[in-house]
Amino acid sequence: MLEALRQAEKAFRKNEVPIGAVIVKNGRVIARGFNKREKTQNALFHAEIIAINKACKKLKSWRLDGCDLYVTLEPCPMCSGAICNARIDKVIYATSETTSHDGLCEMILSSTRLNHKTLLVHDEKYQQECAYLLSEFFKSKRNKKT
Amino acid sequence: MLEALRQAEKAFRKNEVPIGAVIVKNGRVIARGFNKREKTQNALFHAEIIAINKACKKLKSWRLDGCDLYVTLEPCPMCSGAICNARIDKVIYATSETTSHDGLCEMILSSTRLNHKTLLVHDEKYQQECAYLLSEFFKSKRNKKT
Repeated sequence: MLEALRQAEKAFRKNEVPIGAVIVKNGRVIARGFNKREKTQNALFHAEIIAINKACKKLKSWRLDGCDLYVTLEPCPMCSGAICNARIDKVIYATSETTSHDGLCEMILSSTRLNHKTLLVHDEKYQQECAYLLSEFFKSKRNKKT
Repeated sequence: MLEALRQAEKAFRKNEVPIGAVIVKNGRVIARGFNKREKTQNALFHAEIIAINKACKKLKSWRLDGCDLYVTLEPCPMCSGAICNARIDKVIYATSETTSHDGLCEMILSSTRLNHKTLLVHDEKYQQECAYLLSEFFKSKRNKKT
């Protein structure tokens, strides 16, 4: 999760909503990503999507069996669906603070209507750091507006 | 929708699950996509994602306000989430046959927990053609296996 937090810090420095993700297979990080929506002006470029894209390229497969995804914030529905489509085994997230889509992630990952189920785990180890980064980001945005 | 069907036919010819999508703004098609998951070996490359990616690049904005997305099959959770994230106004789909995620799309697009609501419309005009293409595809896959 520390690696995912480092990715989120990169996003923070680039004035993006600070969310980071890494994908791990057999104990090794195989892909990293941080949110780039503003820089790329692309609605798809969330941290998880960037990491999944890299992992598929690296493994030359759309099936990321045996892979776990660590992410600083609980995934949105798009990323939850992508995680499911990529057959990722487990998602470990640090915080769900600031998300407005609370509950939808778990609903998608555990849905019996989809071809795959992904385990969703809340890891509290870096919860405060990940949440602090997000709250600082939004606080600075609000201050700029006033 | 005929344009989306043409895209799905392209996917069929390339031995991909035949799903096509187009994005329309002010009555003009601004982006097209067809499913390329197998060719690219990438879990993200659904027709809708490819079309959204192209539309963001074309409009140089992650906000696709004023855009409608036509798609031959009711979108999966990943694509439904992406549609929401891109602030697309309306999704028009031809069929929901063969999908196992029936209901999740509407739940995501209309969720009060997200920042945006997208209208979901079922257009029956090319329903039979779009469903036939999918059933022929899966029939040919089953025949190859036996």
